[in-house]
Amino acid sequence: MIAIDWGTSSLRCYRLDARGNILESRASSYGILNVAPGQFPRVLDEQIAGWNETPIVMSGMVGSRQGWVEAPYVECPAGFDEIARGLKEVSWNKRRAWIVPGVLCRGAVPDVMRGEEVQVLGVGQDGLFCLPGTHSKRVEVRNARIERFSTHMTGEVYAVLKQHSILGRMMEEGKPDPRAFGEGVRRSGEAGGLLHQLFGVRAKGLMGELDGAASASYLSGLLIGHELRSYDVRNVYLLGAPELVKLYARAAEALGIETHALEPTAGTRALHRLGVMLRAKEES
Amino acid sequence: MIAIDWGTSSLRCYRLDARGNILESRASSYGILNVAPGQFPRVLDEQIAGWNETPIVMSGMVGSRQGWVEAPYVECPAGFDEIARGLKEVSWNKRRAWIVPGVLCRGAVPDVMRGEEVQVLGVGQDGLFCLPGTHSKRVEVRNARIERFSTHMTGEVYAVLKQHSILGRMMEEGKPDPRAFGEGVRRSGEAGGLLHQLFGVRAKGLMGELDGAASASYLSGLLIGHELRSYDVRNVYLLGAPELVKLYARAAEALGIETHALEPTAGTRALHRLGVMLRAKEES
Repeated sequence: MIAIDWGTSSLRCYRLDARGNILESRASSYGILNVAPGQFPRVLDEQIAGWNETPIVMSGMVGSRQGWVEAPYVECPAGFDEIARGLKEVSWNKRRAWIVPGVLCRGAVPDVMRGEEVQVLGVGQDGLFCLPGTHSKRVEVRNARIERFSTHMTGEVYAVLKQHSILGRMMEEGKPDPRAFGEGVRRSGEAGGLLHQLFGVRAKGLMGELDGAASASYLSGLLIGHELRSYDVRNVYLLGAPELVKLYARAAEALGIETHALEPTAGTRALHRLGVMLRAKEES
Repeated sequence: MIAIDWGTSSLRCYRLDARGNILESRASSYGILNVAPGQFPRVLDEQIAGWNETPIVMSGMVGSRQGWVEAPYVECPAGFDEIARGLKEVSWNKRRAWIVPGVLCRGAVPDVMRGEEVQVLGVGQDGLFCLPGTHSKRVEVRNARIERFSTHMTGEVYAVLKQHSILGRMMEEGKPDPRAFGEGVRRSGEAGGLLHQLFGVRAKGLMGELDGAASASYLSGLLIGHELRSYDVRNVYLLGAPELVKLYARAAEALGIETHALEPTAGTRALHRLGVMLRAKEES
C-alpha cells in the first residue's frame, strides 16, 4: 500500500510492504499551501509515479478545507474504528485514495487535530502524549482511543515574538543556552502570568542579565515551561522532531515530569493498519 | 516652563503657566525612533520654536539608550524626590533641559518603565494603577511613591498575533463584538493556560463559533482577561487612551474588579512639579 503524510508545508510518500515496513519514501515541499486548488491529483501522481500499490491512505491537512477535499472531523473518543469509518474517498482518472479525518475534541472550547491522530495511534500504547511543534498537542490515549487532547500555540508564539516583537530585536543567532533555557522554565512558574513574564525577556536584556543568544533560549524555556505546567501529569511520551523532543525533555525534567522519547515514525504504522482495515472491508 | 512627553513614536510639547496649566501644546510624529542620533536638539528646537520658558523637563524614551542621552533608572520605591535627584541635564547651544529617569523595579526579574512614572505620580493619589497599552503597566503607589510595578505585553502580543500568526488569517476588520470580548475574558480563567486558549480562537473559528470580526474581540478579551486576573486586587485606577480604558473597565467588571477611569493628563502636572522643584533648588 501507499501511505501519505500531506501537511501544510510538506508532502511525504511511503511505499509499504504487506507488514507495514517502509520500502521506499519520497518527500517534497508540495505541502497543501504550495498546491493550487484542483492540482492535488496531478501533484500526487507525480510524487508517487511508478508506485502501483493500493490502497492509498493519506493523513494531515490534505483533509482540511484548504486541502484536496474536506474530511469532516470525527469526535473523541476516537480510535482506529472511528477513524476508519470517517475515511473520505477521493478518485481521479482510474485511481482512488482515502483521506484520514481529523479529530475533534469538544469541551468548553472545541479543539482539533489533523495528522497527529495517526502518529499517536500508531504507537499502539495508552498514556499521555506530547507532540511538540508549531501547534503542540497534548493527547490522552485510553483503551487505544484518543480520549481528549489540547493544542498549545507554543512554537508559533515563539516564532512570531522572535520575528515580529520587541523581544526579537535584541536576539541574535547563536548557540542555544541551556542555562538561560532552564531559567526560563523556572520563571514560568512564578507570579504575574505569561504576558508579564514575556516582558522580563526585554527587561533582563536591558539590565545586562541576558545577551542576544541567551534571550532566545530564555524565551523558549518560558513558553515550553508554560505549556508543560498546564499538563498536570507525571509521565509523558514525547513524539516529534529530535531537537524539540530534547528541549521538552529537559524542561519536563526540571518540572519533575518523567518523559519517554518515541521515534516519530508511528504515523506510517497507523496508516498501514487503516489500509489493512480498508482491504478487509472491501473483501468482505 | 515647558513639559515634554517624548516617546517611541510621538513627541508632545506643552507650554505651561506658573500653576501648571497648559497654555499651548504641539504634537508631532518625531518619536525617538524617527530621530537620527545627534538630531535631538535640532528637532526639539524646531518643535518648541518661539517658546522661551524654562525649565524644560522631558520624560519618556528620550531618556533611554536609544534616546537623546541615557538617564539611568532610579529604583523603587520612587516618588518625586527620588526622580528629581535622578534628573539628567542636557545642554545645547545656549539652552538646557532635564530628562526624567525611568524607574526600575527589582524582583525575581527586573522590570522597567519610562514615561509612565510621571503619569502615575501626577495623579497625586495612592492606589493600584493600570496603564493599558502595548506594554501595559500595573503600578502600586503607596505614600506617594511607586512601590512596585509590572509590565504586561498584552497590546503587543495582541498586535503580533493578529498581524503575523495563523489567528490573524481569519480575522476581518469589523465592529468590535462585546459578546465575543466577554467570552474571551471568561475563557481566560479556565484550564489549560494562555498558549492553549489562544488556539481556541482558531478552533472556534473552524467550528463556526466565531466569525472574522468576533475573533479579534475574543482574542482581545482573552489577553486582557489574563492580564487583569494576575492583578490580584479589587480596585484599580485606569489611566490611558479612552478606547482602551473602556475595554479594560468592561473586562474588570466581568472579573469583579472595581475600576475608576482617570483623565490621562496627569503627566504634565508631574513634569510641572519637577520643574518647580528644579527652580527651588537653583534658587536655594
